[in-house]
Amino acid sequence: MSEELFSQRTTTCGSLTKADDGARVILNGWVHRNRNHGSVHFINLRDRYGITQVVVDDDADEELEAAANSLKLEFCIAVTGVVRKRPAEMVNPEMKTGEIEVKAEKIEILSTCPALPFQIDDGLKTKEDLRLKYRYLDLRSQGMQKRLKLRHDFILSIRNYLSARDFLEIETPTMIKSTPEGARDFLVPSRHYPGKFYALPQSPQLYKQILMVGGMDKYFQIARCYRDEDARGDRQLEFTQLDLEMSFVKRDDVLSLMEGLFGHVFKEVMDYDLPATFRRLTYADAMNTYGSDKPDLRFGVEIKDVADLAAKSSFSTFKEIIGKGGFVKAVCAPHSETVDFSRKYITSLEDAAKVYGAHGLAWMKVGENKSLSGGVSKFFEGMEDEVIERMGAAEGDMILLVAHQDWKRCCTSLSAVRNKLGKDLNLIRKGFEFCWIIDFPLFEYNEEGGFWEAAHHMFSMPQQEYLDTLESDPGRVLGDLYDLVLNGYEVASGSIRIHDVELQKRIFRICNFDDETAEQRFGFLLNAFRYSPPPHGGIAPGIDRMVMIMAEETSIHEVIAFPKNTAAVSPMDDSPSEVDQKQLDELHLIVKYPEKP
Amino acid sequence: MSEELFSQRTTTCGSLTKADDGARVILNGWVHRNRNHGSVHFINLRDRYGITQVVVDDDADEELEAAANSLKLEFCIAVTGVVRKRPAEMVNPEMKTGEIEVKAEKIEILSTCPALPFQIDDGLKTKEDLRLKYRYLDLRSQGMQKRLKLRHDFILSIRNYLSARDFLEIETPTMIKSTPEGARDFLVPSRHYPGKFYALPQSPQLYKQILMVGGMDKYFQIARCYRDEDARGDRQLEFTQLDLEMSFVKRDDVLSLMEGLFGHVFKEVMDYDLPATFRRLTYADAMNTYGSDKPDLRFGVEIKDVADLAAKSSFSTFKEIIGKGGFVKAVCAPHSETVDFSRKYITSLEDAAKVYGAHGLAWMKVGENKSLSGGVSKFFEGMEDEVIERMGAAEGDMILLVAHQDWKRCCTSLSAVRNKLGKDLNLIRKGFEFCWIIDFPLFEYNEEGGFWEAAHHMFSMPQQEYLDTLESDPGRVLGDLYDLVLNGYEVASGSIRIHDVELQKRIFRICNFDDETAEQRFGFLLNAFRYSPPPHGGIAPGIDRMVMIMAEETSIHEVIAFPKNTAAVSPMDDSPSEVDQKQLDELHLIVKYPEKP
Repeated sequence: MSEELFSQRTTTCGSLTKADDGARVILNGWVHRNRNHGSVHFINLRDRYGITQVVVDDDADEELEAAANSLKLEFCIAVTGVVRKRPAEMVNPEMKTGEIEVKAEKIEILSTCPALPFQIDDGLKTKEDLRLKYRYLDLRSQGMQKRLKLRHDFILSIRNYLSARDFLEIETPTMIKSTPEGARDFLVPSRHYPGKFYALPQSPQLYKQILMVGGMDKYFQIARCYRDEDARGDRQLEFTQLDLEMSFVKRDDVLSLMEGLFGHVFKEVMDYDLPATFRRLTYADAMNTYGSDKPDLRFGVEIKDVADLAAKSSFSTFKEIIGKGGFVKAVCAPHSETVDFSRKYITSLEDAAKVYGAHGLAWMKVGENKSLSGGVSKFFEGMEDEVIERMGAAEGDMILLVAHQDWKRCCTSLSAVRNKLGKDLNLIRKGFEFCWIIDFPLFEYNEEGGFWEAAHHMFSMPQQEYLDTLESDPGRVLGDLYDLVLNGYEVASGSIRIHDVELQKRIFRICNFDDETAEQRFGFLLNAFRYSPPPHGGIAPGIDRMVMIMAEETSIHEVIAFPKNTAAVSPMDDSPSEVDQKQLDELHLIVKYPEKP
Repeated sequence: MSEELFSQRTTTCGSLTKADDGARVILNGWVHRNRNHGSVHFINLRDRYGITQVVVDDDADEELEAAANSLKLEFCIAVTGVVRKRPAEMVNPEMKTGEIEVKAEKIEILSTCPALPFQIDDGLKTKEDLRLKYRYLDLRSQGMQKRLKLRHDFILSIRNYLSARDFLEIETPTMIKSTPEGARDFLVPSRHYPGKFYALPQSPQLYKQILMVGGMDKYFQIARCYRDEDARGDRQLEFTQLDLEMSFVKRDDVLSLMEGLFGHVFKEVMDYDLPATFRRLTYADAMNTYGSDKPDLRFGVEIKDVADLAAKSSFSTFKEIIGKGGFVKAVCAPHSETVDFSRKYITSLEDAAKVYGAHGLAWMKVGENKSLSGGVSKFFEGMEDEVIERMGAAEGDMILLVAHQDWKRCCTSLSAVRNKLGKDLNLIRKGFEFCWIIDFPLFEYNEEGGFWEAAHHMFSMPQQEYLDTLESDPGRVLGDLYDLVLNGYEVASGSIRIHDVELQKRIFRICNFDDETAEQRFGFLLNAFRYSPPPHGGIAPGIDRMVMIMAEETSIHEVIAFPKNTAAVSPMDDSPSEVDQKQLDELHLIVKYPEKP
């Protein structure tokens, strides 16, 4: 065997301190910065662990001087040299290695680098497709390295916490039977069986339930999942979730486990203290108070019901809607030093509300001595005290009202106003605020299709008191469902599952799957349920999104090594791409190109 | 929220001891055994943690008695009762809970079970497809539960060991560009881009090399990999490997890391001591000594070169082969108490040798006072001492010889004889014997195609001394390749990689990939290599196979929760299966069914 001819590092670029003064070392890394002060070269050498300043002094021999002169940014090099303390005035307290430098004796160029397509640095607003095309350069940035380390630490901490509590990580297959419900399955054609396909799993849902039937008791998996959805902002074709299932549990067992898990993980990974339990809101309360089933609890601005006050007012628009059984709700925008509650600003709030179906946004301002002015204030004359008290408003605040026939639209429109206020008025606290949303409706009505469908998925247990009225009043049925919300994002969704064949079939039927179709699609689950399944339930936190929030980023692309872009393409390897005709022939496939419009 | 109505366990079926005498407990589990002694019922209740004996005494009330009477094997139940010590004569020291039993007060049936398709027990020779169809029942067996736990422990131990040594686990994409070389890629049609496909990765090879270019320095991943190979014995469409890559390393760094890793993991998971370093054999030595590049070192029976002796003998067949530059090698079968070296047995050894190309298997037996008898012994008259000394043979042993024109066939034929002797003569020690095979040839000649191809893969570094003769004498080039072998199985394969665009292109060209094809297939790797890649290398141990060996099984199906059968089908969910026409239409695909023959 032969060794390749390069001087191999004896330490990393993040390790050397004063204590190493005088040591002969070899460093391997990339030229991060390269300054030439006359005949002295200062080279910042970088690896994953840090940056060390390398100095080529003016006593350098010809060979060393030539090497130093030939260096360009991002060259990969090996430096042999001696550690020395920096002169006091040169000490850099910002750098881990800021007390020392390495006087170079030899520089070997391990590989070279042409001019960079963008500067490797954080916070630069490089166009994303360029970053993705040259992801290997982008990954050299401190930001990407830090975020992938955070992701690693987060997942490892989860694994160890669960493993210490008798959970087994079990790998479920990723080439499975296609059982599309909501989203589309990605398909994998079989070469051996013409016309037959495997599917990539949208989640290991059915397999983890079958593991429970198999007595595995406590299962988890950091699982790759796949959904062929239309490109939308932050969606990826493949994503990672913590998939988890437990036998013999009730809802609160799953909730407590998650509270313990994330309490431990946030402390271990980020030294952040979470409360021992997370706030629990019913779906109805979350909607009424925050207008959303994924409320951001890092700020207040709670929604208040003002229907009774509106009914007493002289505002006919409100009175009419209330008369027809509609809703009037309001939020109070607190006085701001930086944002002027101008007509223009109010219009921007109204625009946000209209996206969610509001017909308009009424407003009034709170003045001195509990007075109301502007907007619809004149209709509330004589009711100022009542209105101000209800809203908890103070001088300088502004009250914003939405009236709507439809409860959900009334709520969500005000949620949009609330979220915009949170951002614009700088109301959002730093930190991480978890909450549980519970008691979700089990079914949603599909207006287009004219049938009921599962709000979550078809395997979730209805709450016991609705078992007799599933078919007669599906809209009223609550399920043993729970969502975990963090800083306004849904980060996990779970439920207690059905473990009874007959109940499962009733749900399928309500969701428009007749027995034959259900048997064809989900027969293997129904079969398994005939063999004494245990009561069970689970949850599935999304890893990408949680790490994104922890890293204080707003795109999951920032916490995935090689994401696809928003067009579902990898600019680096150009996938998806055409394949050889031979490959298609072997798979018994012909491509039917759509006609050009 | 409503709670489902069942009594939830207060402990598991594997926990109770004498110390719990008198405690009221609830257990949840499955009826493992159910004996009825007159009016007393003994129910062995099982969960993942163990088995507890539940007793329904003759003082049971009507309801309890009725419940006990209705129980059948594998019913899922909740038992409320009181722990009591067993009478001394009933203590079962084989059971963790053998000192106690639970006197039942209440039994709830959580779910029922029809007659079982097979008995849930280990060692039963149930037909595999039946086990796989009802995998949820098979998973309830102690064996499957133990093996999946072993797999979990093994993988977790690996993760923690590597993470403590600065490795980051980074998830690479599984929907990538198709770059088939050896095996076929599985393809995933794109809905958005008619005629374009993603591929499932055969391994994260290119992405992990690109991570090195991205400065990630030390990477690993427990990675799902996919190969569309023809069904063959123990192959799975998807399998799991520990994928690992390091920057700035030489071969021995990777080898030492693996020795440390598996030393730690075998100790932690199985309390098994491995040596601090594993034996290293060059490919040439492994072939000459064991006839195989994955030798089982748990027994001796080494191959000896006897060409010089054969040349001096009077056996014209041997002399002829040697005269033409061929080879004569031999092994010594040690005297056995159980196996008679009959003609029939020798023929069975010969048959094994012939599979690998031997024309025949010559033999002679070692008698008293260093005598040789039978077979070809008469040709070695006068050379008995020399032959016996060379072979290290003793009275009762048998010497088996193969002569062949081709070195590899001579070696592998004797390897087959050696392996059969190992099994038949019970020579194989218990335990785990690792070794490294190094200094592999970089290229293999494809006789059919008439070109050279990579013996391992095209990204491996040739050893330095062959850099000038790559093109002129590819057959002689050794690579910086290494295989890890355990108990006669190849369990990992790795290499130092090429990190130079020009060298990489030379390899592509030798392997029959012209520059244009190489650019089209591997352009993104070549692009990355233009931007200062570090020297790097890695390895990829196969998880399924390693766990199989650790579990002393001979099929990887035993250590995978939901394997496909040998026909690449899942008997449980019937995948692959037909899909809706709508799904095919959306993917722009038409199936071209082959004509019936």
